Amino acid sequence: MATSLLEHISFPSDLRKIAREKLPLLATELRDFIIDVVSKKEGHLGASLGVVELTIALHYVFDTPQDLLVWDVGHQAYGHKILTGRKDVFHTNRQYDGISGFPKRSESVYDTFGTGHSSTAISAALGMAIASKLKGDDEKNHIAVIGDASIAAGMAFEGLNHAGVSDANLLVILNDNAIGIDPSVGALKDYLTSVKEGRNPKANNMIKSLNFDYSGPIDGHDFDALISELERLKKKKGPKFLHIITTKGKGMALAEEHQVKYHAPGKFDKETGEILAKPEENLPPKFQDVFGLTVLELARQNLKIIGITPAMPTGSSLKFMMDEMPERAIDVGIAEQHAVTLSAGMATQGMTVFCNIYSTFLQRAYDQVIHDVALQDLPVIFCLDRAGLVGEDGATHHGVFDIAYLRCIPNMIVYSPLNEVELRNMLYTASLGLNHPIAIRYPRGRGVIVDWQKSFEEIEIGKAKRLRKGNRVAVLTNGFIGNNVIEALGNIDNSGKFSHCDFAFVKPLDEQVLHDIFTSHEAVITVEDGVVAGGFGSGVLEFASTHGYCLPVKNIGLPDQFIEHGTVSQLQQLVGLDVKSLEFIFGNY
Amino acid sequence: MATSLLEHISFPSDLRKIAREKLPLLATELRDFIIDVVSKKEGHLGASLGVVELTIALHYVFDTPQDLLVWDVGHQAYGHKILTGRKDVFHTNRQYDGISGFPKRSESVYDTFGTGHSSTAISAALGMAIASKLKGDDEKNHIAVIGDASIAAGMAFEGLNHAGVSDANLLVILNDNAIGIDPSVGALKDYLTSVKEGRNPKANNMIKSLNFDYSGPIDGHDFDALISELERLKKKKGPKFLHIITTKGKGMALAEEHQVKYHAPGKFDKETGEILAKPEENLPPKFQDVFGLTVLELARQNLKIIGITPAMPTGSSLKFMMDEMPERAIDVGIAEQHAVTLSAGMATQGMTVFCNIYSTFLQRAYDQVIHDVALQDLPVIFCLDRAGLVGEDGATHHGVFDIAYLRCIPNMIVYSPLNEVELRNMLYTASLGLNHPIAIRYPRGRGVIVDWQKSFEEIEIGKAKRLRKGNRVAVLTNGFIGNNVIEALGNIDNSGKFSHCDFAFVKPLDEQVLHDIFTSHEAVITVEDGVVAGGFGSGVLEFASTHGYCLPVKNIGLPDQFIEHGTVSQLQQLVGLDVKSLEFIFGNY
Repeated sequence: MATSLLEHISFPSDLRKIAREKLPLLATELRDFIIDVVSKKEGHLGASLGVVELTIALHYVFDTPQDLLVWDVGHQAYGHKILTGRKDVFHTNRQYDGISGFPKRSESVYDTFGTGHSSTAISAALGMAIASKLKGDDEKNHIAVIGDASIAAGMAFEGLNHAGVSDANLLVILNDNAIGIDPSVGALKDYLTSVKEGRNPKANNMIKSLNFDYSGPIDGHDFDALISELERLKKKKGPKFLHIITTKGKGMALAEEHQVKYHAPGKFDKETGEILAKPEENLPPKFQDVFGLTVLELARQNLKIIGITPAMPTGSSLKFMMDEMPERAIDVGIAEQHAVTLSAGMATQGMTVFCNIYSTFLQRAYDQVIHDVALQDLPVIFCLDRAGLVGEDGATHHGVFDIAYLRCIPNMIVYSPLNEVELRNMLYTASLGLNHPIAIRYPRGRGVIVDWQKSFEEIEIGKAKRLRKGNRVAVLTNGFIGNNVIEALGNIDNSGKFSHCDFAFVKPLDEQVLHDIFTSHEAVITVEDGVVAGGFGSGVLEFASTHGYCLPVKNIGLPDQFIEHGTVSQLQQLVGLDVKSLEFIFGNY
Repeated sequence: MATSLLEHISFPSDLRKIAREKLPLLATELRDFIIDVVSKKEGHLGASLGVVELTIALHYVFDTPQDLLVWDVGHQAYGHKILTGRKDVFHTNRQYDGISGFPKRSESVYDTFGTGHSSTAISAALGMAIASKLKGDDEKNHIAVIGDASIAAGMAFEGLNHAGVSDANLLVILNDNAIGIDPSVGALKDYLTSVKEGRNPKANNMIKSLNFDYSGPIDGHDFDALISELERLKKKKGPKFLHIITTKGKGMALAEEHQVKYHAPGKFDKETGEILAKPEENLPPKFQDVFGLTVLELARQNLKIIGITPAMPTGSSLKFMMDEMPERAIDVGIAEQHAVTLSAGMATQGMTVFCNIYSTFLQRAYDQVIHDVALQDLPVIFCLDRAGLVGEDGATHHGVFDIAYLRCIPNMIVYSPLNEVELRNMLYTASLGLNHPIAIRYPRGRGVIVDWQKSFEEIEIGKAKRLRKGNRVAVLTNGFIGNNVIEALGNIDNSGKFSHCDFAFVKPLDEQVLHDIFTSHEAVITVEDGVVAGGFGSGVLEFASTHGYCLPVKNIGLPDQFIEHGTVSQLQQLVGLDVKSLEFIFGNY
């Protein structure tokens, strides 16, 4: 691999010494570098390949880090990381103790804002721009690069709506590739397509309606067009909007052709692009597929079932249902707030709505869960994917607050299945009608049961399950992490000291079983894959205090700090939720 | 008062029997009825006066309740309530055991969706419309009436973006009066104004860009225009958008002239419109004014201070600062998500940002608090107004989840002042720089200290305060509710049995004081103005269990149910947080 240019670039100041005509060559090298590392180390591929020219052009034209650059959903920022001091550590991307897969303020002064969740960049950059203005700096540039899927989220509109009446030096660059993780949807997307295809004259421009100085669309892979336009915009004051057209996966044929698959393809052959999937026979299924296939199975029988996803058809596996019954399985785009209230509206008309949202993204719709669903006690079925520690996506994506933020909401049922069969049966049970909203939270990735597609069994709401009988110490677990406890107790308890009880229902808690436990044991341990503060264990403490029990209770879960990235297994070790750590704790009883 | 028409109308079916030419007379009667009741019983005046004609026209033209009508931020729905079976109980509006000030599903089949928070109507109505379609009903109409302030919120954009690519029978009616509670802001508002003033031809129409069948703007007080347009739209399929122009407070001269004041004016003279304010001498100030005046005072000295409010300049009293230094105190409109991330962006540039959001509305920006502020440990100062029970606004507005949903977030400091002086001093302390985000939560309305504008004192972060010394039972309180405890203990404890300690800091908890308490008392009681599940008391339980204390702890706070409307004092009695109830509980020790 020829790296004659890239090997001399550590920081943008080096980049700026390169002659403009050599930038295309640098783009090739940067692309190769990204492909080389990501093919071996995994990560987000397509988005960063699509903005190679834009990344180079931005750092070439603007005076970063004095000028402030915010990458929306930062998985497009690999090129940016490589050009801003992290070329040599880029191979540690997304690994434990390595660099983050997203921009991160503590990692580099060039990462002006952490952006794991989408659609934040306009607001953040506008905040910076207004601050500069107030500090009397009218020369500094503030740039938000945002994709067409992200700009459709309500939050981005709120940012545009404010920026349009400010006089701040904000440049919004719309990186329009017509795709997020899955293809973009919505009326705005149709509108942008019409602009790209020249069916809408610039005079009829939605962005101009919001008071922006609009330019484009231009080819985001054309250095001449990019650089001359950025040079022009650099000198203009006030809110500006540049619309560029790029191709996700640009420069790698298979990635351009199969954009969904190559968003984050895992390991692949860097020459051919072929994905090096591991053989998958006889493995337990992913929880995602259990959700997607079961909901489809149920929906075939029950015409009232609707599936909703905010922009995660592939990730959530709602795709199965979308392919077979597109009318009833709907991708609403990056619009969690809308997804929840839309589901509530459907529920008022008697529909059975499975609203699938990643745990970390349901934070975006917290008010809608409270105000539109729970307060009206509408039986929306929230399927919270990627609950608990998610691994390599790290601190921005762990779904670890959900128990705490949902448990305090009246009318909510909160359930974490121990395994795939329990998830399947709870989806079935919920489809029968619960008269209350329910949140079913399950982890990212594979479960523990290969043969999971058994006939449906109804689950009794609020019932805990005794998994192990003992007489001294009761271990109460919630959800999938219970499997670590099963293993740990299997390894260390051969004297019948430990009980193990699966409290899949965080809410309502099985008070009868709790009374039994608190009157028949000497100590209680709770284990959960979420924050301890306000979590499942906290609920058990509330029960104990309400009923005047005075047993020692130990709450095991996540400490009061943000957990970084790494494999789930590494992170479990870090926080003491792995089998060995649990054995050690149990061994002290 | 002539009620010859209105007295014969209980339901829309009665209304539809009236000849069309008599509708203006009915409008006058309905307006008089609203003014009559609200002048005596208080409530939201201006919004409902502005939609009298629209309300009548909608129920006249459409076949409610078969056709489904959703009023966004339902305080505009008084006319709707009166015409849909609640004329005779309208005088109980917002009172304990009376009807709700907002549409409420459990109250009437005509209230299709509860709407205390803004900007939900499009999503909810679209959900209903898609459900109808799936059920094979292509005739039913689904109508969302939304104001120009509310439609600027991101969530409304998400709804429009989805609706535009659906074929659902959705009619969005934009009630454009250029004001929310305070005047509308933002680029969209400017755009709408340009449309109204004819500066933008219809062909260049933002709403049309989103695939809607747009019509208007028309005069929303003109029955002929309204009814003929609604009749036309009733027959059209798919997503439609009608832009109507109204005047908030229409029909009452003072309310039209002073729209902010007459949004919810309290009692007034129905003939003259004059507000019957009570004499206010020597009363303790409102917490809102303590916030507003103190921030202004601090901002005069410290140029880095910025104030942010999402659409509540008057309600939050940020207005004081906005009037004196408009550059540094910004109303961003109904855009809580943007407000929080904008604040985060400003904080990265070293600004000291006071982001004032009502507790119940911070639920709208929960993800932004976690992902954009706390994860990056940016020292944004959240001022959570209307925390705890808010009174007449009821279940949709109580700020009772905040302790639970904030306490679980790493890096957050959570503080509830006992009184105005503590609020003032904490605002001062936070302005000095805390290196962490803080949420300062305080209640709606007046405090307890008349002479509050003393010189500033710095508050030590995480320090609890002993208010009363005793040796058997320790009462630990958080925030303003502590004053009820002071009073209750003053009334019943003359034997030195009770300690009282003010844990204004929910997080970090003062562990040293907790150790002292748990080793020197026989029982502990926690009292908070928020949900018990996951709240302050739960934090105390976590401390006790972590350190192996086994004292009986009783958590007093809100039960696991939504609390309705009424005066704060009535609601405190309902949940057992009033002085008498507390005395009773303490008396049992």
